[in-house]
Amino acid sequence: MKYRKEKDSLGYINVPADKYWAAQTQRSYENFKIGGQKIPVEVIRAFAILKKAAARTNAELGVLRKNKARLIERVCNEILKGELDDQFPLVVWQTGSGTQSNMNVNEVIANRAHVMKGGKLSDTKKVIHPNDDVNKSQSSNDTFPTAMHIAAFIALEEVTIPGIKALRDTLNEKAKAYKNVVKIGRTHFMDATPVTLGQELSGFVAQLDHGLATIKNSFKHLSELALGGTAVGTGLNTPKGYSKLVAHHIADISGYPFKTAPNKFEAMAAHDGIVEAHAALKTVAVSLMKIG
Amino acid sequence: MKYRKEKDSLGYINVPADKYWAAQTQRSYENFKIGGQKIPVEVIRAFAILKKAAARTNAELGVLRKNKARLIERVCNEILKGELDDQFPLVVWQTGSGTQSNMNVNEVIANRAHVMKGGKLSDTKKVIHPNDDVNKSQSSNDTFPTAMHIAAFIALEEVTIPGIKALRDTLNEKAKAYKNVVKIGRTHFMDATPVTLGQELSGFVAQLDHGLATIKNSFKHLSELALGGTAVGTGLNTPKGYSKLVAHHIADISGYPFKTAPNKFEAMAAHDGIVEAHAALKTVAVSLMKIG
Amino acid sequence: MKYRKEKDSLGYINVPADKYWAAQTQRSYENFKIGGQKIPVEVIRAFAILKKAAARTNAELGVLRKNKARLIERVCNEILKGELDDQFPLVVWQTGSGTQSNMNVNEVIANRAHVMKGGKLSDTKKVIHPNDDVNKSQSSNDTFPTAMHIAAFIALEEVTIPGIKALRDTLNEKAKAYKNVVKIGRTHFMDATPVTLGQELSGFVAQLDHGLATIKNSFKHLSELALGGTAVGTGLNTPKGYSKLVAHHIADISGYPFKTAPNKFEAMAAHDGIVEAHAALKTVAVSLMKIG
Amino acid sequence: MKYRKEKDSLGYINVPADKYWAAQTQRSYENFKIGGQKIPVEVIRAFAILKKAAARTNAELGVLRKNKARLIERVCNEILKGELDDQFPLVVWQTGSGTQSNMNVNEVIANRAHVMKGGKLSDTKKVIHPNDDVNKSQSSNDTFPTAMHIAAFIALEEVTIPGIKALRDTLNEKAKAYKNVVKIGRTHFMDATPVTLGQELSGFVAQLDHGLATIKNSFKHLSELALGGTAVGTGLNTPKGYSKLVAHHIADISGYPFKTAPNKFEAMAAHDGIVEAHAALKTVAVSLMKIG
Repeated sequence: MKYRKEKDSLGYINVPADKYWAAQTQRSYENFKIGGQKIPVEVIRAFAILKKAAARTNAELGVLRKNKARLIERVCNEILKGELDDQFPLVVWQTGSGTQSNMNVNEVIANRAHVMKGGKLSDTKKVIHPNDDVNKSQSSNDTFPTAMHIAAFIALEEVTIPGIKALRDTLNEKAKAYKNVVKIGRTHFMDATPVTLGQELSGFVAQLDHGLATIKNSFKHLSELALGGTAVGTGLNTPKGYSKLVAHHIADISGYPFKTAPNKFEAMAAHDGIVEAHAALKTVAVSLMKIG
Repeated sequence: MKYRKEKDSLGYINVPADKYWAAQTQRSYENFKIGGQKIPVEVIRAFAILKKAAARTNAELGVLRKNKARLIERVCNEILKGELDDQFPLVVWQTGSGTQSNMNVNEVIANRAHVMKGGKLSDTKKVIHPNDDVNKSQSSNDTFPTAMHIAAFIALEEVTIPGIKALRDTLNEKAKAYKNVVKIGRTHFMDATPVTLGQELSGFVAQLDHGLATIKNSFKHLSELALGGTAVGTGLNTPKGYSKLVAHHIADISGYPFKTAPNKFEAMAAHDGIVEAHAALKTVAVSLMKIG
Repeated sequence: MKYRKEKDSLGYINVPADKYWAAQTQRSYENFKIGGQKIPVEVIRAFAILKKAAARTNAELGVLRKNKARLIERVCNEILKGELDDQFPLVVWQTGSGTQSNMNVNEVIANRAHVMKGGKLSDTKKVIHPNDDVNKSQSSNDTFPTAMHIAAFIALEEVTIPGIKALRDTLNEKAKAYKNVVKIGRTHFMDATPVTLGQELSGFVAQLDHGLATIKNSFKHLSELALGGTAVGTGLNTPKGYSKLVAHHIADISGYPFKTAPNKFEAMAAHDGIVEAHAALKTVAVSLMKIG
Repeated sequence: MKYRKEKDSLGYINVPADKYWAAQTQRSYENFKIGGQKIPVEVIRAFAILKKAAARTNAELGVLRKNKARLIERVCNEILKGELDDQFPLVVWQTGSGTQSNMNVNEVIANRAHVMKGGKLSDTKKVIHPNDDVNKSQSSNDTFPTAMHIAAFIALEEVTIPGIKALRDTLNEKAKAYKNVVKIGRTHFMDATPVTLGQELSGFVAQLDHGLATIKNSFKHLSELALGGTAVGTGLNTPKGYSKLVAHHIADISGYPFKTAPNKFEAMAAHDGIVEAHAALKTVAVSLMKIG
């Protein structure tokens, strides 16, 4: 494999010559060779939404030049289309805050943008800087919780709920089709009073309806985004109006009703929104064990 | 200890002479000597609400004589006041449906009612029959899930939520009191940017506010009652209009907005409402671990 | 209820006049009114073994007067016979180290000893001091882990293993009795090739034999006692030879092969021996779910 | 992609032209598109050991021709060298018994053997039959539990234990190096009596020593193999002496002391050996959480 030299505060390091990531990603890749479970692509795409919204917000609030923002947005679009999936090699075993995945995204966006503008990966001076431009008004401490909420929200909306609904609707059809097929109801491993097969299936439909409601309850907390809290929740180094506007752009880009968290200290330090969504999924899993 | 003889389909059995329970309770007591964890008093009281509502409903729908219903209601009131707490000796280790605790309540109500009317526990003929009167229009299969929902709902409303609120309000006062006390924010075990103590505490307040919302979300499912499904969910052996009316009376007696479950097959066979409430409590527990 | 005044470093506090415990127990009782789950009697009895062994060791090593040691031993014998079970009112919700239960035992032993010698609970000067005599050469940091190991070891030996053996032997008898009763073996919910009922039951017997072996594997770690480490594991304030001798006496009093832990820092700071025993019990529980 | 037609009892199905697997693998691949978690390569390699031992045993006991056995063994060697890793595409979501992975291995071995002998994948008649030759004297019901034990045993011996030992030895060196560095011992978040850094680290070493012993305890059960039980544990359709001899060959090929399970009904129906090993790993994980 061919390599190029990249540099960070620890010195030089070899990076595969054809990859967009740089020194910080490469160090994590080499230092955390633990298991094979990579950061899910859903989180990477959520980061692309986030970085695109941040660039747009920074430009609108006058802290990033518009042509830089547009360039960042273009790379984010490529990530969202899945064209750069092989640029995110890191596993889930990182520092607690996910710093390295945040930097992986920053580095890939910056280097890809440079190449888009006709530059070469080996150039020492680049058009876009991973920290000063792509990560502007952000910290790994507020980006990673934000990306988790975006990724979970979208996966629930686009994968989980449609899947449960499909099962629910199929069972509902069968409940109607078999509503007059009488069978023996059973309690305590013994025959009890009659019940129809349709009635039994209707119970499963009701379980899934409740399960869908439970999942939807978790959207309220998941919709709240930590972005704008920066390092410790105070929003240091963000322009005025940033957190509301960036949440607005995330909602706009994703098509889902995200909003800025009213309390950034909670949004960054706790992960209760994720816990709540996880609890909803476990509740549905218990239902499915009963149904199956 | 002095005993009297009680009889059921398996024959005679000795029961402590001064206890209101009868043969079925005594058999469970002797056969399931497992651990010491008794059915919680909250569930016993929930049964009292249920039995009171069932007697009232049965009387109104013409399947139970009014004076019998009144007598049953009077004993239920004694249970609710805690006057009969020593009459429920059974542990949680029973058959899956809680048949024995349902029968324990039926037997205690019937025998106590008989004594109230001047009868003696040793009389072979009693004023009230545990199955034909107290358990009328019911089955252990629909009463136990109903009692679980009532008990959980009331405990959450009267113990859990006030406790969390008290903690939340105290933290909120402190958040305000210390809003200007600057400390060093810390990330990755290292000093980061400044934060005030009040800001840190406000994050805990926000966590508890979310936790309270999560618990409240679980009330919708918990408010749905299985009662009226009887043995397998079809409502066999209940008078017309029973399930709606009995839920109305449970709401009236308890003061909480219970209603009959739209699908009794789900309400009896699954316990997803309890699972959902449990998940909410675990979510809050995770919050409290973080706060503590 | 009648009370007497007891005093500790925080001042005076009312204690029920007829109870042997003193100020520290009473404060914990009043401050930690959380749930109703008391410290198990098995742990209290384990403490009695420990305190008896410590008194004997302290006397033999010349740091406690022999008549004091004998008096402490006599009270410990009463605890072991179950005569003082109502003297340990504390719940499991305490500080992490179980300080209050250690002090509960110290106070009860000291006061009961004083009464044995003809003194009165209201006397301000007592024959035995809870800290200086009963707790000599000990700390809550080494006594509680020691009591947990003793309690777990004895409960496994005297309750769990005989119970599993009884089930295993019954199943083994049935396996032999039904060794020629042919039935249809089933796989994937479908009929497969024949098997005898005795063969099926023999599989359960083999499961329980493995389970018993798993539990017995955990005895090695459980047999190692932290006692002698005192506050942080260094054994500060213990006479020379204490830790080995006190473990020897615990083995002698209990009849089980306890020995002093080779590394007190591990024995006090970690609870891996308890975790390992717990894991063995969960393994057996999984077996029983399969069998049942 | 180019395909060839493969046939099973359900009819024809397209299989990628260059893959060794056949119809049953392909059906599972298409029907269980659930997640991306493939059967671990450790299990595939364990199957190769098993199939090699079974072929050798079948040949020695006269139920498989020697040249067929040699051919099967040669393919197993390729699997063990990792040369066929891309031939096992199935995810872990299968029927409970792992039938499809067993068939995947059978099909790959049969087809690869055919190609080795100069045949073509598109030939309708093959040198080796996946069921009649590769799976002879076996059932998915006894092969999968056997492969799980082999895979777990080897992974623990070759990955887990060396990893823990390396950490243990490093900590032990540091414990010695810092044995005189005094620090403040802490209890209850407060300064307590002094301790050396070396003493603290020695506690971690002792934890890991106990952890290693716990893992080793689980080898006894893991070493027992279900192979020879066939469909329901009775060993139907195996030649006399098969189960002992095949376990002997597995031990010989792997270099680890496997033996035939004394009770095949337990070995096939329960997975307590795996549960026990898992419990040991969780115990060590608790240790590592404490150490870390």
